[in-house]
Amino acid sequence: MALIVQKYGGTSVGNPDRIKNVATRVKQYRDKGDQVVVVVSAMSGVTDGLIKMAKEIMPLPSEREMDMLLATGEQTTIALTAIALHALNIEATSLTGAQAGIVTDGVHTKAKIQNITPKAVHDLLDAGKVVIVAGFQGQTSEGHITTLGRGGSDLTAIALAAALKADLCQIYTDVDGVYTADPRIVPTAKKLPEISYDEMLELASLGAKVMQSRSVEFAKKFGVVFEVRSSLNDNPGTIVKEETPSMEGVVIRGVSLDKNQAKVTLVGVPDKPGVASLVFQSIAEANINVDMIVQNISHGSGTPATDLSFTVDKPELLKARKVIEGLKSTIGYREVIANEGIGKLSIVGVGMRSHPGVAAKMFDTLAKNGVNIDMISTSEIKISVVVDLAKGESAMKAVHAAFLG
Amino acid sequence: MALIVQKYGGTSVGNPDRIKNVATRVKQYRDKGDQVVVVVSAMSGVTDGLIKMAKEIMPLPSEREMDMLLATGEQTTIALTAIALHALNIEATSLTGAQAGIVTDGVHTKAKIQNITPKAVHDLLDAGKVVIVAGFQGQTSEGHITTLGRGGSDLTAIALAAALKADLCQIYTDVDGVYTADPRIVPTAKKLPEISYDEMLELASLGAKVMQSRSVEFAKKFGVVFEVRSSLNDNPGTIVKEETPSMEGVVIRGVSLDKNQAKVTLVGVPDKPGVASLVFQSIAEANINVDMIVQNISHGSGTPATDLSFTVDKPELLKARKVIEGLKSTIGYREVIANEGIGKLSIVGVGMRSHPGVAAKMFDTLAKNGVNIDMISTSEIKISVVVDLAKGESAMKAVHAAFLG
Repeated sequence: MALIVQKYGGTSVGNPDRIKNVATRVKQYRDKGDQVVVVVSAMSGVTDGLIKMAKEIMPLPSEREMDMLLATGEQTTIALTAIALHALNIEATSLTGAQAGIVTDGVHTKAKIQNITPKAVHDLLDAGKVVIVAGFQGQTSEGHITTLGRGGSDLTAIALAAALKADLCQIYTDVDGVYTADPRIVPTAKKLPEISYDEMLELASLGAKVMQSRSVEFAKKFGVVFEVRSSLNDNPGTIVKEETPSMEGVVIRGVSLDKNQAKVTLVGVPDKPGVASLVFQSIAEANINVDMIVQNISHGSGTPATDLSFTVDKPELLKARKVIEGLKSTIGYREVIANEGIGKLSIVGVGMRSHPGVAAKMFDTLAKNGVNIDMISTSEIKISVVVDLAKGESAMKAVHAAFLG
Repeated sequence: MALIVQKYGGTSVGNPDRIKNVATRVKQYRDKGDQVVVVVSAMSGVTDGLIKMAKEIMPLPSEREMDMLLATGEQTTIALTAIALHALNIEATSLTGAQAGIVTDGVHTKAKIQNITPKAVHDLLDAGKVVIVAGFQGQTSEGHITTLGRGGSDLTAIALAAALKADLCQIYTDVDGVYTADPRIVPTAKKLPEISYDEMLELASLGAKVMQSRSVEFAKKFGVVFEVRSSLNDNPGTIVKEETPSMEGVVIRGVSLDKNQAKVTLVGVPDKPGVASLVFQSIAEANINVDMIVQNISHGSGTPATDLSFTVDKPELLKARKVIEGLKSTIGYREVIANEGIGKLSIVGVGMRSHPGVAAKMFDTLAKNGVNIDMISTSEIKISVVVDLAKGESAMKAVHAAFLG
């Protein structure tokens, strides 16, 4: 008998029939005697519909009220999922995030889980029930409803698995697992049987849309081994876990292309201490996540000046640009350039630590394919380059072919 | 400065534009310096849509899970209403029933309010905010989400008005107030400027669809004076309050026709003690509300036998019939007849206490119009008759003309 946490995303619970399918799958585990906690997202399309209504009323609605509004999406799904289990004669009880003991900070729409008191979940499991928990949501210690932001349901599942000391955490999604590259772009991409947290983290943050980084970070921090697998078939998925020695034998685990980034460049920034700090503090205060940052050496005569570039998620470009424009008189840069037409191509693998020449091979491949490199950023286990968006996919295919066949 | 509780039903908040209208009305009171608590229902159609999905999964879903599901309807509206007030620069905060301190018993889908701890509401009002409370819902002391059943949002408003000692409670709906009869059926019907709790109670229980009886009962018990008025115009509505001496001058306050009743008759019931008690205990245990009960004197030779008739809400007819059929061997009646083709026509007025001959005049009017009377039931301030459904409306017009012109 194992304690299993299963998470089903919006597509997997997209209509009453799919919810019945989820119930059937849960029953398979229950019939084996496993204890099951099910975390569900809002039915696909529901959250967007709610956001649309809110924006019809006010373009920038209050974040507290958006949380109140969006939390209804998952609450709907938990009730329907419990009913679907009842229809199969499985005892099941639904819990909102608050009822499941998920306590967050008060940063509405992007709340962080502070702690989980899973007493209610334990009690229900002990009573022989399947427990259905609303993903994506929690409440503050003062009782305000909060949501966890993008990928929040994965986070709920992994955090619950940690708090419950679950034996297994399964993230059901509409893909079969983690691939060496997006199979829709690179037909030769292969499914990975396993991957380390760090590699998954890099892939997640690089736009391989399987999971948000924060959930993987959380899993790594608390040592939660989880499996990413499809809710549409019974194929084994990809196990995400601590790095093992055998993983180093593979040079590159995967290739990813992030088309959702945009680039902001401050041209002619006076090269003096405190400028970068001012820029990125202001950006952080506006709650905008910055990804790559590149600053070149100073040039020019007189006061030395430099160019400072960074990338943000495309939807935040306007907001970021506004922040930067508000700093013009303080910093005294010459101009600001925003560019949405970029793609970030990355290769990831813990093996690159012990295999020299990986960067050279990647750049060479791009050069041979006529792809110009705009920005470069590296970490211990990944290399990212920003390229022209139009050339992104062909560049991805070429790099995948060079490293992964 | 007054403290006002306003309740808006599903039609009044049926889409984002209507929610904006609600916000505009709230602003009018806020601009005068009033403190406003707004209670809202689910947007019209939303609850039905949720029920439909649940029934697609399972015909008789768990009542706890239905509460979990349906509570999302009001939660959606409170968030959108708060946002609509923000759009008008009015500070506003939404609260679920649970957050507003509404504690109920554990009878899911028909919970009763046990107490209200309106501390959160008071704190927000003191901070200068409009408070938007989800109608129709609460939570048990163990933290389960409950709903209050039909008309539950009115009850929330009136209970909050009592708990907050509000100066005024306004029930906004899609009719102008309480009429002497349904104006869609009786074109000469007139709007009543005021009505006593007892009269309203009789009208409510008699199918004048303005309000459910339990809300009026609650208002009477706690002395909450409330106004029923339209959210579509600024006309004064009908004030519902304690009976005043002047109300007795009017013989009949109103005429109502309830087409939503069905009749069950047990034919040939052995006339011995305990039979009626057994029937109505079993019906009560199945949570079916019985309205009229009529038993005729015994007849027949040998063991005396009688016929026992009662009416229930149409949707509960099948359930009631099943219960009765389950009692056949225990009771030993001859047969059971169910009839959906009935209408209950009633006249109501505290004045009938001091005006003799009201019943005679009603029966005479019906006879002259060729309407046969099937069952009769009276209280101190109302007379109800069951008639053929097909003749209900013409009977109603005739009775209205005879008493109210």
